[in-house]
Amino acid sequence: MPPKRISLLGVGLLGGSIGLAVKSTLNNCKVIGYGHRPQTLAEALSRGAIDEAAATPQQAAQGSDLVILCTPVGLFGEILTKIGPTLAAEAIITDVGSTKRSVVALAEKHLANPSRFVGSHPIAGSEKRGVQAARADLFRNALCLTTPTGTTDPSALEAVEEFWRILGMRVSRLTPADHDKLLADVSHLPHALAAALVAMQTERSLPLCGKGFLDLTRIAAGDGALWRDIFLDNRDNMADGIARLQTELTGLKRLLETGDEQAIKAWLDAAAARRKGMEGRGK
Amino acid sequence: MPPKRISLLGVGLLGGSIGLAVKSTLNNCKVIGYGHRPQTLAEALSRGAIDEAAATPQQAAQGSDLVILCTPVGLFGEILTKIGPTLAAEAIITDVGSTKRSVVALAEKHLANPSRFVGSHPIAGSEKRGVQAARADLFRNALCLTTPTGTTDPSALEAVEEFWRILGMRVSRLTPADHDKLLADVSHLPHALAAALVAMQTERSLPLCGKGFLDLTRIAAGDGALWRDIFLDNRDNMADGIARLQTELTGLKRLLETGDEQAIKAWLDAAAARRKGMEGRGK
Repeated sequence: MPPKRISLLGVGLLGGSIGLAVKSTLNNCKVIGYGHRPQTLAEALSRGAIDEAAATPQQAAQGSDLVILCTPVGLFGEILTKIGPTLAAEAIITDVGSTKRSVVALAEKHLANPSRFVGSHPIAGSEKRGVQAARADLFRNALCLTTPTGTTDPSALEAVEEFWRILGMRVSRLTPADHDKLLADVSHLPHALAAALVAMQTERSLPLCGKGFLDLTRIAAGDGALWRDIFLDNRDNMADGIARLQTELTGLKRLLETGDEQAIKAWLDAAAARRKGMEGRGK
Repeated sequence: MPPKRISLLGVGLLGGSIGLAVKSTLNNCKVIGYGHRPQTLAEALSRGAIDEAAATPQQAAQGSDLVILCTPVGLFGEILTKIGPTLAAEAIITDVGSTKRSVVALAEKHLANPSRFVGSHPIAGSEKRGVQAARADLFRNALCLTTPTGTTDPSALEAVEEFWRILGMRVSRLTPADHDKLLADVSHLPHALAAALVAMQTERSLPLCGKGFLDLTRIAAGDGALWRDIFLDNRDNMADGIARLQTELTGLKRLLETGDEQAIKAWLDAAAARRKGMEGRGK
């Protein structure tokens, strides 16, 4: 059964987009939003992303059958502590965080019934932020990863996965540990790289950038606080990814020093073939 | 005076696009194309990118007032050797290579009158290759760098810059050494990074990629032989860029290890602010 009352704790880009998507696909479902800035809530109301604004996470979560954590991951602990005591017995809790080990651990620690928590990571977003950038179709055709554990109630898992499917997503399961390891490589490290590439430019080099550079560094315009939380939360995998990338770059540097034409071409060809094979993937 | 007869030595993406742009902006200008594959020449003819196909670079260059080298940079030496003896006395020679020190040196070595050579780098392109991907508007509103030296004839420089302006480009001058140093940072190193990021992925991580990863790695689908030439030709600046990027990444790794929230946020915020300031730049 699809949810009748959904709480969005955080109504930025992701929370706002969930609200818009729910309002355009689910009938008879009430959406309650919480955000720490009144202006954000007003904007979410006026855009029709939420039906009601709540002043606290507790108020927002009360009586809902689906509660979705949509704040930056650094706030999850505080929010779970607050809503724990007021959740309905059968309430299902999920999130949209980009890291999963920590939120799963926090849920097991702070919730009276952690079996009703299901970690989710809808892989959709933008370098833009805030409810102004929210879109009802943000999740359509994109991938959502869920990260059940041995504790997870199978019916809660099914309900959460069905919810993402209603919003147009493909769903796939991973352990929290695998999720964080794989996402470090494919999302968190790329963000760090884009930022590093922007950081190392000079006032003379920047004006010479072409389309390739702009495409490559687009994600570096993302919200600093959000990504700080993700980096710190996933720091072991990030450190491992940085080390492997540095090995890759050191290898290239060595090939350049020895002038090994064949090996350089083989390295570039392999990357090009792999990248071409990805066209049409993602969203 | 705009040229009356232009030779394109190489009719791939860039050569083909110059041909299409010339045919759509210059009246009474004949375009001769040379390419080592007959099929490419046939395609260039049928797309209207060239008026005539030539079987050798010498034939193509003969009697032209503007000769443009549009092959990968690794072939410039061979082509300059071949065309040197057959060039008209007043012919102007330029190129579209992504590196400039080597081609300037080759021109001084192989041309009877090196003062008529002007290094050019139109910063426009695509990860797609070949004359099939050529577009008449590829250069419009993009930046073209010219790299005159003490040897360069000022009238040849003016003529080449005017030619790029006719094709819709902004033009800016740099020394060959500055060009190669700055472009390593803003173009060649980013390409290496995109390839390295693709190379370090696994069969498990690749299917989880989102839009950010696809944007970031798009350029890695580019032609391996072309980029091998560029990397090798600019290997000193590439090595320096890799080293500076590794320093940047090592710094981030250290901040992650110490958990320095403020410094990580400051680093991300600085990159985000800089990147946002670039919107609308480039092409």
